[in-house]
Amino acid sequence: MRTEVRELKSVKLRSPILIEGLPGLALVGRLAVGYLIEALDAEKFAELYSPHFPYYVIVDEEGRIRLPKGEFYYRRSRDRGPDLILLVGDSQAQTNEGQYEVASCVLEFARKHGVRTIITVGGYRTEEGGSKVMCASTSRELLERAVRAGATVSPAGSPIVGIAGLLLGLTAFTDMEALCLLGETKGHIPDPRAAKNVLKVLTGLLGLEIDFSELDKIIDEASRIEGILTEIEAGEERERVDRRGRRPGYIV
Amino acid sequence: MRTEVRELKSVKLRSPILIEGLPGLALVGRLAVGYLIEALDAEKFAELYSPHFPYYVIVDEEGRIRLPKGEFYYRRSRDRGPDLILLVGDSQAQTNEGQYEVASCVLEFARKHGVRTIITVGGYRTEEGGSKVMCASTSRELLERAVRAGATVSPAGSPIVGIAGLLLGLTAFTDMEALCLLGETKGHIPDPRAAKNVLKVLTGLLGLEIDFSELDKIIDEASRIEGILTEIEAGEERERVDRRGRRPGYIV
Amino acid sequence: MRTEVRELKSVKLRSPILIEGLPGLALVGRLAVGYLIEALDAEKFAELYSPHFPYYVIVDEEGRIRLPKGEFYYRRSRDRGPDLILLVGDSQAQTNEGQYEVASCVLEFARKHGVRTIITVGGYRTEEGGSKVMCASTSRELLERAVRAGATVSPAGSPIVGIAGLLLGLTAFTDMEALCLLGETKGHIPDPRAAKNVLKVLTGLLGLEIDFSELDKIIDEASRIEGILTEIEAGEERERVDRRGRRPGYIV
Amino acid sequence: MRTEVRELKSVKLRSPILIEGLPGLALVGRLAVGYLIEALDAEKFAELYSPHFPYYVIVDEEGRIRLPKGEFYYRRSRDRGPDLILLVGDSQAQTNEGQYEVASCVLEFARKHGVRTIITVGGYRTEEGGSKVMCASTSRELLERAVRAGATVSPAGSPIVGIAGLLLGLTAFTDMEALCLLGETKGHIPDPRAAKNVLKVLTGLLGLEIDFSELDKIIDEASRIEGILTEIEAGEERERVDRRGRRPGYIV
Repeated sequence: MRTEVRELKSVKLRSPILIEGLPGLALVGRLAVGYLIEALDAEKFAELYSPHFPYYVIVDEEGRIRLPKGEFYYRRSRDRGPDLILLVGDSQAQTNEGQYEVASCVLEFARKHGVRTIITVGGYRTEEGGSKVMCASTSRELLERAVRAGATVSPAGSPIVGIAGLLLGLTAFTDMEALCLLGETKGHIPDPRAAKNVLKVLTGLLGLEIDFSELDKIIDEASRIEGILTEIEAGEERERVDRRGRRPGYIV
Repeated sequence: MRTEVRELKSVKLRSPILIEGLPGLALVGRLAVGYLIEALDAEKFAELYSPHFPYYVIVDEEGRIRLPKGEFYYRRSRDRGPDLILLVGDSQAQTNEGQYEVASCVLEFARKHGVRTIITVGGYRTEEGGSKVMCASTSRELLERAVRAGATVSPAGSPIVGIAGLLLGLTAFTDMEALCLLGETKGHIPDPRAAKNVLKVLTGLLGLEIDFSELDKIIDEASRIEGILTEIEAGEERERVDRRGRRPGYIV
Repeated sequence: MRTEVRELKSVKLRSPILIEGLPGLALVGRLAVGYLIEALDAEKFAELYSPHFPYYVIVDEEGRIRLPKGEFYYRRSRDRGPDLILLVGDSQAQTNEGQYEVASCVLEFARKHGVRTIITVGGYRTEEGGSKVMCASTSRELLERAVRAGATVSPAGSPIVGIAGLLLGLTAFTDMEALCLLGETKGHIPDPRAAKNVLKVLTGLLGLEIDFSELDKIIDEASRIEGILTEIEAGEERERVDRRGRRPGYIV
Repeated sequence: MRTEVRELKSVKLRSPILIEGLPGLALVGRLAVGYLIEALDAEKFAELYSPHFPYYVIVDEEGRIRLPKGEFYYRRSRDRGPDLILLVGDSQAQTNEGQYEVASCVLEFARKHGVRTIITVGGYRTEEGGSKVMCASTSRELLERAVRAGATVSPAGSPIVGIAGLLLGLTAFTDMEALCLLGETKGHIPDPRAAKNVLKVLTGLLGLEIDFSELDKIIDEASRIEGILTEIEAGEERERVDRRGRRPGYIV
């Protein structure tokens, strides 16, 4: 088995923009691009398989199983905005070379479909978990468009790890340009709030209008769960402190 | 050296079902399919070698050594039931890509022998270690047959790790269909009881009748050993608690 | 994607010496060869990319991103001294085979450009972090030249890890000769002082004269920072000792 | 770079026996075969290089460096005994597939030189570190010869890890037969005593007579060093117990 894209349907697109959101930190990219697929009613037309994805299969609600994979959706331009290819999936590659191989395979697929612009979406961790969206790009013009749409230019030196970064880096050997949007997150658990922050920049940049009301419900639910978890943790912490007369941190 | 199957004997089978039981959790699959081979008096006809198997050799009772390998047995249909190919062995592949490579090699061998249906057998861990048998499949019909034979449909989201899962997933690129049967186990030690639970579903599904008396002896012996181990552990635990006036868990 | 060198400019050099300084212990080689590139006003003419480099990209001061890479600079001989190729970069390869692959790729590039002599630069750790420069070589004559330039012959048995070592070892299959210069360092943090010690030997050996005044400023700044860090650590240590009445080392 | 043997000298041998002693547990094999090379005054005629060996180079007494490698020596039969090829070296392969690749490369070299019998030498760990020599083989006759020479047949189930095992296992695909001799050792430190025990069996088996006096000196020196180490450790242990009023083991 090789890393390869299997096309389910022959689709011709006009200079589409590829938007990548494979799972990463706090699932920000996965949540954002997954929501966009729903909101735009995009259609699946290709799948990516790789021996560098984890060696397990996933069981769905009906007991059916499938390999981990990447999924390409497309959505033709309507009133305004470009044709889109949207990439989500179950996992990133599990090894260093696998990461390069999967990213190269995505780029080759993009090239074949006439993609000129790639936007990757992910999260970046801060202690506060604020609401910024960082951007970095291979193109000054694309970077400026992201800034005008509300993003902040990423500070120098910070590495962008995984496919969200590699896809940008590997465009150097193509005629594509690429942009990365990273939503600020504490990074503990899936963070739909960060996904919304990224989506606001992304849709602004693309001239798209989508309905955020479903995402807002998910955010409310996540806040509720996080609140419960925080209380439980605080309770456990108090118990530990009581039992020992001091915080465990002092021991180690 | 490549991952490859070496055929010891040229065998022609009629649309055989391939049943896989390489070692995994609590050796459930290995024990079940190994017992089936004995009970059906199946004959070995091919071996699978791979540089992804562990880099050691195994010494047998007479000081003879051999590489870790997979072993294919066959058993022609008698009164009723299909022709069978049974796969057991010493180990699964040791790396992510190795897992995909070994599973692909098994599938290629299956294809060559006209296999249309693959059944993989393994264990799944629960704290209680009950007697359920979970099933998942690439085919709704196969899943229903497993349920009628006593299995429970696996809950959504649970990954099936290793070759028992990958073989199912990789049939997506073939015209084969596949079923996975997982016996519930605590998973500490080899679990012949879980193997029997799986075998009951499997033989029911295949319309086979086998004699479980030898397996029952193995189960009794395993219960006896587990009882001894549990007593020893309980004793050690009491000692630890006595010595320190509290359980070690509270320290860390 | 393969490990490969991409030439940005066609350059013809006369029997150049290749000097390697990829990041390693205390960044000694990176700092030394990087400074040499500045001091000699060398020009970049090729880049090395590899799927064995880390799977992230690096953001620069303007939000632009790029893959980790190796960079080859050249500097033609002026009044005296040989033509030079200088190799620096972001990282070494991340796996065992990757290390061999990247070193082999560098050697192939060197062979193509008529290189006969390779000098690799790095650090070696001692507790005192003195100012010695150790040398080892594939050639007795080259070793003697390094000793005359102030280096000490490396003791037997000490392995030289990574590309600084492998480049030397792999010349055995070529007609090149190679020398390794390792600056003594405590190895905690980037060590420009060790880099200067190596550069003094290296420039002496090559008959080059460079201005060290900018490097001296970097050394002063690093000393200042190290002084602050040492004070902070000492303070934290005192606090720990006070709080517990004994050093934490005694606990574990 | 590939795993490959480089022949330094063209040598024709009559059905030689290959004896392998790459570094492993307590260096038993390395010490035994290294001593045999000295005692028989064997001559080096080939070297094995591999990107699966560690990615460092080794510095010799004169500051010269070289890659880790395997070294093949030969010794023609004199009065009695067969022609021999002796393999020692710096390291085993560092990855699972690398182990298979290096062993396959050794076998291919053996085949080319008409080898029919391979003997691998190593150590096996016991708490007592007695003086037994275990044997396992692909051939009953070879096993019996080892037993007659003083070896004990290895118990079933014990894996033989690394090249000493794989070389035996991989002969299954050739017309060679192979024997493994493992000297009992505590395994903490290089164990020349275990090497001698293996050598006594090996030379008996081959009908060779060698002078053990140099090895006895090494054994005496090793015993002396071990005695000192044991005393130091006992002292440290007493100190720990005194300081805390109980053994550290009880804490964790």
